[in-house]
Formats: sequence, C-alpha cells, structure tokens
Amino acid sequence: MASFDLAQHPHRRFNPLTGEWLLVSPHRALRPWQGQQEAPDRSQRPAYDPTCYLCAGNTRANGAVNPAYTGTFVFDNDFAALTPDAPAGTVEVGGLLRAEAESGVGRVICFSPRHDLTLPEMSTPDIRRVVDVWAEEFASLGARPDINYVQIFENKGAVMGCSNPHPHGQVWAQRTVPGDPAKETVQQQAYFQQHGRSLLADYLELELNEQVRIVLENEHFVVLVPFWAAWPFETLVLPRRVVQDVTQLTDAERDNFADVIRRLTIRYDNLFQTSFPYSAGLHQRPTDGQQHPEWHLHMHFFPPLLRSATVRKFMVGYELLANPQRDITPEYAAQRLRELPEVHYKQTTA
Amino acid sequence: MASFDLAQHPHRRFNPLTGEWLLVSPHRALRPWQGQQEAPDRSQRPAYDPTCYLCAGNTRANGAVNPAYTGTFVFDNDFAALTPDAPAGTVEVGGLLRAEAESGVGRVICFSPRHDLTLPEMSTPDIRRVVDVWAEEFASLGARPDINYVQIFENKGAVMGCSNPHPHGQVWAQRTVPGDPAKETVQQQAYFQQHGRSLLADYLELELNEQVRIVLENEHFVVLVPFWAAWPFETLVLPRRVVQDVTQLTDAERDNFADVIRRLTIRYDNLFQTSFPYSAGLHQRPTDGQQHPEWHLHMHFFPPLLRSATVRKFMVGYELLANPQRDITPEYAAQRLRELPEVHYKQTTA
Ligand SMILES: O=P(O)(O)O[C@H]1O[C@H](CO)[C@@H](O)[C@H](O)[C@H]1O
Ligand SMILES: O=P(O)(O)O[C@H]1O[C@H](CO)[C@@H](O)[C@H](O)[C@H]1O
Repeated sequence: MASFDLAQHPHRRFNPLTGEWLLVSPHRALRPWQGQQEAPDRSQRPAYDPTCYLCAGNTRANGAVNPAYTGTFVFDNDFAALTPDAPAGTVEVGGLLRAEAESGVGRVICFSPRHDLTLPEMSTPDIRRVVDVWAEEFASLGARPDINYVQIFENKGAVMGCSNPHPHGQVWAQRTVPGDPAKETVQQQAYFQQHGRSLLADYLELELNEQVRIVLENEHFVVLVPFWAAWPFETLVLPRRVVQDVTQLTDAERDNFADVIRRLTIRYDNLFQTSFPYSAGLHQRPTDGQQHPEWHLHMHFFPPLLRSATVRKFMVGYELLANPQRDITPEYAAQRLRELPEVHYKQTTA
Repeated sequence: MASFDLAQHPHRRFNPLTGEWLLVSPHRALRPWQGQQEAPDRSQRPAYDPTCYLCAGNTRANGAVNPAYTGTFVFDNDFAALTPDAPAGTVEVGGLLRAEAESGVGRVICFSPRHDLTLPEMSTPDIRRVVDVWAEEFASLGARPDINYVQIFENKGAVMGCSNPHPHGQVWAQRTVPGDPAKETVQQQAYFQQHGRSLLADYLELELNEQVRIVLENEHFVVLVPFWAAWPFETLVLPRRVVQDVTQLTDAERDNFADVIRRLTIRYDNLFQTSFPYSAGLHQRPTDGQQHPEWHLHMHFFPPLLRSATVRKFMVGYELLANPQRDITPEYAAQRLRELPEVHYKQTTA
C-alpha cells in the first residue's frame, strides 16, 4: 500500500489558532462541477458614481453628506449592528435560554474616493493610508472603557455579501470579545505559557524553513497559505516582529504591510483574471485592559473562489454540520499563488 | 432609558449545544439592501431528465448504471471526500504542523426517482422511506469498527452548493468525530453529568412552556426556532422522547418525523414562494462503541434566505472573523413560519 502523502490522501489538519480540525480531500479536486456559477466581477465602474453612498460629496441614506475627501474617509455606520447606547440587561431561563445585552460601535472606512478602484489597483502609499486609519481606529476605539474588542475587516465582492463596490472596509467594536478572537487568545496564551514564545512566531519559523506554503515576503512581513487553511486560497499575513496590534507597527513596518497587501491582492486578481472576492480582517489583542504578550497581530484573507472566476467553494452541508473541508491542498494553493506575476492583469492586458 | 428588550436591542445569545455565542442585532433588519440578488428557484423540471446522473436507469460519470428504482436509491459517492482504504499515517512538525490520515465512506441517497420533486412535494409515506434509509445507513455504517461518526445531510438549492436538483442527500461517515458533533457531545455530556437529564429534553420543556419559538408539533416531534439560531429561519427538529440515534425511533415516531419534515419544508417553500434552499442534517451519537446516554437525536435546518426569494444572509467578514450574527430575532422568525399554511403554494396557485 502507498505510504501516507498529504498531497494525495484524505486527512485532517489541526488549526493551532482555534484548536479545531479541518478535513482535507486532495483526491477530490477533479470532480466535475455542474452547480451554481458565480457572475465574475468584470464591471467597468466610473471613477465617480453620483448614486454611490460612499463617493465624496454624495448624500447618504440618512441625509448626511460625505465631505469632498481625497484620501480615506471614516464615519459611523448608518446601519450599525452595534450601538453604544443599548440598554444593559440579561435574560436567563432554566440555564438554557441565556442572553445578555451587547453594545458597541460600527464604523465604515472608505479606502479611496475613487469608486472604480480596489486595494490591488491602489498604490502602496494609498494602501499605507488605510493601514494608518486601521491604527487610528484601533487606538481610539480600543481606548474606550466600553470597548474590549475591535474587529477591522473588509468584505470584497457581491459574492461575499458586499453591497457597494466602492472600496471600503468596516470596524465592529464591542463590549465583549467575540468567539474567534477569544479562541485565538486561549490558544496563544496556552502556547505562550508553555513555551514563553509567540505561537505564530514559532509557526512562521517552521514555514520559512519549509518554504512550501510561503506566497511572498518583504523585510517585515510574510504572506503564506496556513497549513490549516480552510478556504481554497486562504492566506495569513504575518509581521516578522511580534506585535500585539497595528498601532505598534513602525513606519517601515506599515509601509511593508501595505506592500504585501498590494502584492497579495494583485496575485489574487491575476489568479482567475477577475476582481477576486474575499473577506479579510485583522486579528489583534483584546482591548480589555489586560496585558496580552501572547498575542501576535495577523491578517486573514478568506476568499471563496476554487477553480475559476465562476466556480466557488461552498461551505454547506458537511461543513456546517460537521467540519470545514477543502479539496485542493494548501501547498498547491501556495504554489499557484507564488507562480503568478505581481503586475495586475488589467495593466498587462489593457 | 428603555429597559432591555430582546426584540429591540442588540444582544448576545448563548448556544448550549456548542458552548458558543451569537450576536443578535434586531434593530438592523430594516437596513436597505443593494447587494447580490439570488436567482429564485422557480424552475419547472421534468419528472425524468435523461442527462441527470441520479435519475433511474441513467449512466453516471463513472460508467455505473442506476437501477430502475421506484422508491429510494443509495450508492457510494463517485467523488467521495472520504475513502475507506486511505493509507494511515501522521505528520507532526514542531507541534504546530499536525495532520493525520482520515478514512471513511461517502454515500448518496436519492429520495425519489422523480426528478421534479423535493421533500415538501413528496408524500409523508415517501418521506418516511427516506427516514428508514437514514436508519439503515446509520446502522450499517455505524456498526463498522473503522467508522466512529455518521453525518447524514442534504444540501438543497444551487445557492447551497447543490450541484444537481434531483432530490437527494448524502452520508459522510468517518473514523474520527468531526468538530461540531464533538462539541455537542462535550456540552451534552457536561449537562447530563450535572443534571442526570438530556440537555435538549430540558430545553424542549422550556420551549413548550414559552411557546414563542415553536413552529409546529405532532405527537412525537416538535419543530422550533432555537433561542440561539444563527441563520434567519434556522430550525431544530426534536423528538419528544430522548433517543440517541434514528434507528431507535419506533414506527410511529418515524411516521411523525416524516410528517414534521414535510410540514416544515412546505412552510419554508411558502415563506417566499420559492423552492427554499437549505443545508439540513441529523446530529446523532458517535458510533465509537461508547454509551452515549447524554445524546439526544436532532435535525438542524440551516436556510440562508433572509428577506425574499432573492435576498440572503451572508455569513462573511464579521461572521467569519469574529462571531455569527443575525438581524431578525428567532422569535420573529418562528412567528413568520407559524403563520404560514401547510398546503404547498404550487398546489394553491396551480
Ligand atoms: O458533494 P457535492 O454535493 O457535490 O458538494 C457540495 O456538498 C459538499 C458537502 O457539504 C461540499 O463540500 C461542497 O462544497 C458542496 O458543493
Ligand atoms: O454591513 P454590510 O456590508 O451591509 O453587510 C455585510 O457584512 C456584514 C458583516 O460581515 C454581514 O453581517 C452582512 O451579512 C453582509 O451582507
């Protein structure tokens, strides 16, 4: 019998950041697909859209008027899922019906006044401005006594529930630490207590040693497909230096962060020659007033496309009821991403 | 200030089956939606499709020929994510790269030879035959020493990754217990040890007492929107008697199971007058040779539609990085489902 091979045989992989397992079925990548086809985003958008509620100078649904901004623009979400003034309270019935009031803040971050751009089409200095806004938002929201966690993220593409193509992200900041960062805190704490080192720093060392899952690097940052990636082309963006949050990044590190975001998202667009959809976001220390030496800032990219601009991975039945599952291996995904050019396809085919 | 009200104010709810929290933002239900629209499934399908690989008498991609079946038909998945003969082995590098071989079996269950039907359009006796197949598959797969968990599920609708509209479900059975059933085992065990009773039996009692989240009932089964539902119209199907798996259901209980599945899925179709997409599946005891007195068989329905046949809930950015989140309350969802008729709209509008 053949010996066990991660590239060929079904197996499970462990995610040390969450403590959970993932099913990998490499042999299944070639099954035929007769299901839903996505509409690839090849829209030509104008630089300014008078009907867009994020373009400079436009009036939003609630009557507020956007300033004539030229860089980034941040405002309170007009339809925030969290509000600062929600009444406090709890519900508890028989130990099984348990609820508690939650408060927080929702913010919208416009990356650029240009309606027709996305991160891979922006310049590194312009992306650097977005990194600075992340740091400002984390600092000001995180300093509030009623905010113990700040979630910064971007949904890109209609298939990822994004309702406006204008380049923008969001911040949801709240009183409690939500599930995933709470799990990552527990896992990083346990590792730090046992080894006196950052879990992700040790992990990065292993990956730099093996090289097979590395996508790209610069002086201060590394992008890789994590060993436990669930989404087909999922990546993890890691600073080489252990920092707990984005405010601690130096000037040079912020430039480098912008550089890897640009180069990664260009490779993503080039993969299927489409505006590549994803959800992405920062994971950082809770702002709960505790020291978090165990925390290592990182950024996750969760992109759904699997085989082409029109065929995605569905996290459904088995995945919703049992376990995340993937077909192509993380090593194969990293290799595909590594082989792509860092010039955007729109610039080479224009 | 107004006092805390689950129907109005943002809050978190606890899921005692998984030990995890969910964010509820009831005030957000009315935000405008300018994002992706789904294509509602109003297709008229023929009773027999010569190109369908699940229709009776047809040849499948691998050359196998389906029998001229008249009820249900079960076969080994031609593109199974799990295979019984996978070589064993493990990988471990620095405690952080951890993988182990996984083996198992994938099966496909055709619910009916009729290509044009779905569960809500089938008769109760025909659905009862599907329940019997679930019991047979659980019994035969669960008895194997190399299978410790049997996941039975259905993906319905293209939006839920279903690649063939012919009414069918799947079984993925494997050596290890996957994440979600493992969590439910831990939670049910802890409750059972503390109270000497089934968590879900006690929960059901609370719900029958409050009534607000009950959707429908019969002698042996109750369907409700769980207090901690994450998907907009998520439901939980519960037998009143504590059984660990579907093989333990009596004849009358199986009939009642088929009855509630039929009535629930008719209400789902009637909600937005469309073939309502969902992922659904059974959660049952692990088949690991242990006694599982804590386990209470149940069925989850996870449907994505939120406001209409074309507007779904996206579990993206915040949900993928932080925590599941919902807008409409479970109580409102239950009320909507309760108010619907149990005659299928195609029969009343035909
Ligand atoms: O096996 P199918 O129906 O082809 O595939 C579908 O269900 C599977 C199990 O939930 C998922 O892994 C796939 O992503 C989905 O497209
Ligand atoms: O806030 P948006 O962009 O309107 O909405 C989008 O992102 C949110 C945060 O991930 C999700 O809750 C919504 O389901 C999604 O459509």
